Amino acid sequence: MIQLLDTTLRDGAQGYGISFSKQDKLRIIKLLDKLGIDIIEAGNPAASISDAELLAKSIPLSHARLAAFGSTRHKDTTPLTDPSLNAILNTAAPVAVIFGKCSPSASVQVIRTTPEENLNMIFQSVEYLTKNGKTVIFDAEHFFTSYDEDPDYALKALLAAQSAGAQSVCLCDTCGGTLPDRAAEVVREVCKSLSIPVGIHAHDDSGLATALSLAAVKAGATSVQGTLSGIGERCGNANLSTIIPNLVLKMGKKCLGGDLSQLTRTTRAVAEICNISLPGSLPFVGKNAFAHKAGMHVDALSKQKGSYEHVDPEIVGNSRKILLSEYSGRVSVSKKLEGLDPELAKDEELARELTAAVKQMEHDGFRFEGADASFELLALRTKGLLKNYFTLDLFKVMEEQPFLGASTNASAMVKITVSGQSEISAAEGSGPVDALDKAMRKALLVFYPAIGSMHLSDFKVRVLDSSFATGASVRVMIESSDGVSFWSTVGASTDIIEASTIALVDSMMYKLYKDEKCNM
Amino acid sequence: MIQLLDTTLRDGAQGYGISFSKQDKLRIIKLLDKLGIDIIEAGNPAASISDAELLAKSIPLSHARLAAFGSTRHKDTTPLTDPSLNAILNTAAPVAVIFGKCSPSASVQVIRTTPEENLNMIFQSVEYLTKNGKTVIFDAEHFFTSYDEDPDYALKALLAAQSAGAQSVCLCDTCGGTLPDRAAEVVREVCKSLSIPVGIHAHDDSGLATALSLAAVKAGATSVQGTLSGIGERCGNANLSTIIPNLVLKMGKKCLGGDLSQLTRTTRAVAEICNISLPGSLPFVGKNAFAHKAGMHVDALSKQKGSYEHVDPEIVGNSRKILLSEYSGRVSVSKKLEGLDPELAKDEELARELTAAVKQMEHDGFRFEGADASFELLALRTKGLLKNYFTLDLFKVMEEQPFLGASTNASAMVKITVSGQSEISAAEGSGPVDALDKAMRKALLVFYPAIGSMHLSDFKVRVLDSSFATGASVRVMIESSDGVSFWSTVGASTDIIEASTIALVDSMMYKLYKDEKCNM
Repeated sequence: MIQLLDTTLRDGAQGYGISFSKQDKLRIIKLLDKLGIDIIEAGNPAASISDAELLAKSIPLSHARLAAFGSTRHKDTTPLTDPSLNAILNTAAPVAVIFGKCSPSASVQVIRTTPEENLNMIFQSVEYLTKNGKTVIFDAEHFFTSYDEDPDYALKALLAAQSAGAQSVCLCDTCGGTLPDRAAEVVREVCKSLSIPVGIHAHDDSGLATALSLAAVKAGATSVQGTLSGIGERCGNANLSTIIPNLVLKMGKKCLGGDLSQLTRTTRAVAEICNISLPGSLPFVGKNAFAHKAGMHVDALSKQKGSYEHVDPEIVGNSRKILLSEYSGRVSVSKKLEGLDPELAKDEELARELTAAVKQMEHDGFRFEGADASFELLALRTKGLLKNYFTLDLFKVMEEQPFLGASTNASAMVKITVSGQSEISAAEGSGPVDALDKAMRKALLVFYPAIGSMHLSDFKVRVLDSSFATGASVRVMIESSDGVSFWSTVGASTDIIEASTIALVDSMMYKLYKDEKCNM
Repeated sequence: MIQLLDTTLRDGAQGYGISFSKQDKLRIIKLLDKLGIDIIEAGNPAASISDAELLAKSIPLSHARLAAFGSTRHKDTTPLTDPSLNAILNTAAPVAVIFGKCSPSASVQVIRTTPEENLNMIFQSVEYLTKNGKTVIFDAEHFFTSYDEDPDYALKALLAAQSAGAQSVCLCDTCGGTLPDRAAEVVREVCKSLSIPVGIHAHDDSGLATALSLAAVKAGATSVQGTLSGIGERCGNANLSTIIPNLVLKMGKKCLGGDLSQLTRTTRAVAEICNISLPGSLPFVGKNAFAHKAGMHVDALSKQKGSYEHVDPEIVGNSRKILLSEYSGRVSVSKKLEGLDPELAKDEELARELTAAVKQMEHDGFRFEGADASFELLALRTKGLLKNYFTLDLFKVMEEQPFLGASTNASAMVKITVSGQSEISAAEGSGPVDALDKAMRKALLVFYPAIGSMHLSDFKVRVLDSSFATGASVRVMIESSDGVSFWSTVGASTDIIEASTIALVDSMMYKLYKDEKCNM
């Protein structure tokens, strides 16, 4: 059993562009707990008032324990008077993680004390927290470079923590510069000298955080620190969403109680709260991690299962995806069609026409990889099966800044027609697309009350060929929901408003189509 | 000396959203050659007409050799009649890379032949290409799983290639599922049995492509295949921009003639042509790879150089960056100011005011991390040092789709004032922002002819809180250039047109400020 500590809310929060509201933090804690993470490092109460507030009261969890993070006492304080240690004691978190220096040079140059006094600081800090009821993990900062500098001293720092009652130590590759083989050697040596568990905390500056964490476990570490989406300062922390499946599926270790099926969903949900776009290529949980584009690979996959997949995507809660692209052939389109409607997939003529249409539209900037609803509508239109729920006959969008320094205002007017009956409406919005969206809904509501139940849940803009700058093509992806299901549509144009309009029309059209299909 | 083969144009092109024009391919080839890559795998002439055209004539290069990629002959052809082999022969590329199967099961299930015939196919294909003057690399597909299935047969496949005259073999971890330690064992065994060089081709499906490539080199491989930005199918190919500095700086190997100083620039340029956003967190070359946000780390860095950096960013052509964020303190702002203007940096009052302004604006959605020009203007405005080159008094943007099915048209009208004199102008554009940009330039040109020399070189839109969908905040980043230098500006608003306007005004303002500063 490998113990997992997630530090998204502490070390992860140092990542580029990351900031959390209290609500964000609580949502992430619940998600990590539900996933089966053992310890959630939730903040640094001495450094942040909001972290102190968050941790002041206990938060009911089903499996995980919360940890408060801080440093060993300051050289000029005693444990009793030290703000960092007492901030930790003032939290309801059962676990305390404190970091300390492990080399003579860092003792002298960074915290300006003697190497001996640094050992005292470690001992007294751990002892104080332990005696006051905390389970203490000692984070040995810069451990691997410290060990290179002076192995005896580095071990003494760990032994100081152990003899003061630390539950475990964690070896930190703080700069992310250590090679996995070297880390494994050091972990092996440390495990020989200590009687308490040893953990690993890696950073990805050399692109080796996953490998180093796995190597450390192989060498005897029994606890791994990281962040579920890999966020963290510089190149990020060790990515737990990559490490966990490697530990379980490739090394036969046990984590998360053995159930990885929520891994993809949870990682994506946490990334959503972090407001970061997970790379599609992220191992195991990325949206392209099991995506196949090459015609050859798609063909081979159908002949020999697993021929281009190292693990079954379902195990980690991900799924295989057949990418449609201007290079993909009819096989890919047919496979995709099969997923949507097995009946339609049998129609060879349709597959041929649809492939040609997809190629042309992808050439113009559309991408159907993430826009299943637009793809389904395209298939239906190609086949002549889509009912004409409405037409958007015309629209006008106006935006102005009426005088110097004034804020802008945007408005839109639209005319739609349903079965020969027209409706004109207009709306203001917080921008031109918002105004258009509102005006279209208003007009459609007259005919279709169900439109009232849907809303846009995501809106993404991608500039396609940014070297044309403001004249570049843009692709707009819209995700919509009616509370029951989610669907995605796409629009592309050199004009962002036109691209948005295409995606908006598809989104509303799909809602109407879907409702009718369900009622049949 | 480790031989590097870049396959951006072949295996990389299988990545999500990647497609290259002929011009793109030529630009990438030149960039990789200049960087010092040894072999550039430039395409698959049998599978793509455009690849065949590209490789038909020789391309003058200073260091690299081009390679054409294909498969061993088909089971029902002879080398002389095989389209894939002859497509390779018809290119001017001196190197041929051909892939083949290495397990009995793949021979039978995927290419539907016997294991014995597969060995013949390998031998004859390599022999045919070699005898016709090509240097042949045999890519051993699925090598590690094949070796697990039947080590003798897997070795026989390699020996067939060797005895037919292959210059080297490359072991491919095609599914990216192998652990580095296991790969090292296999490489060690293979090196014992072969007399020609052994290479490694890894994929990142387990997040271990870098580690596996390094482990293979340690075990005896002398050639590494990958893509400079890590693009490739599913989770991507092994990322050469991560592997190269690890080989050189951490393992003492030689590549790129020992000069890594163009690595960051070249990787970013290639990514630009691929039209992908490199993750800021990419090791060594990412824009945040040496970025420091935590106040504590910035402080420690100034005390002990390298305390949070594993290598000197300059070596790989990257640079340290102090991130500004709503959490960053005055130290970070001062450091950033120092980089721009050492005189201004001494002004403590300014640093304080500027920190407050930055915090407020970042709270509103601005980010100055990538917008140095906007940051400099903000500093000058805060200090009252920015000359009022112009004001944008008002603007109106109109966009309409005049009738059903018509394409949209966008136009803008602006009024600007320079030293009390006003100018109104209007323009059409390929979208509302393009129209605004053109109208503003037209008006400014009346006063400032230098505006004619600048153009926008990049335009990025980021939806900040996409859960508000079309009402979400957007951030617009604009990069501009006048052929001599580049500068970046930022705007944020709930309204995409307002956000763009803010960034456009800053961009033009900065051009005028910069020109005047240079002439002083």
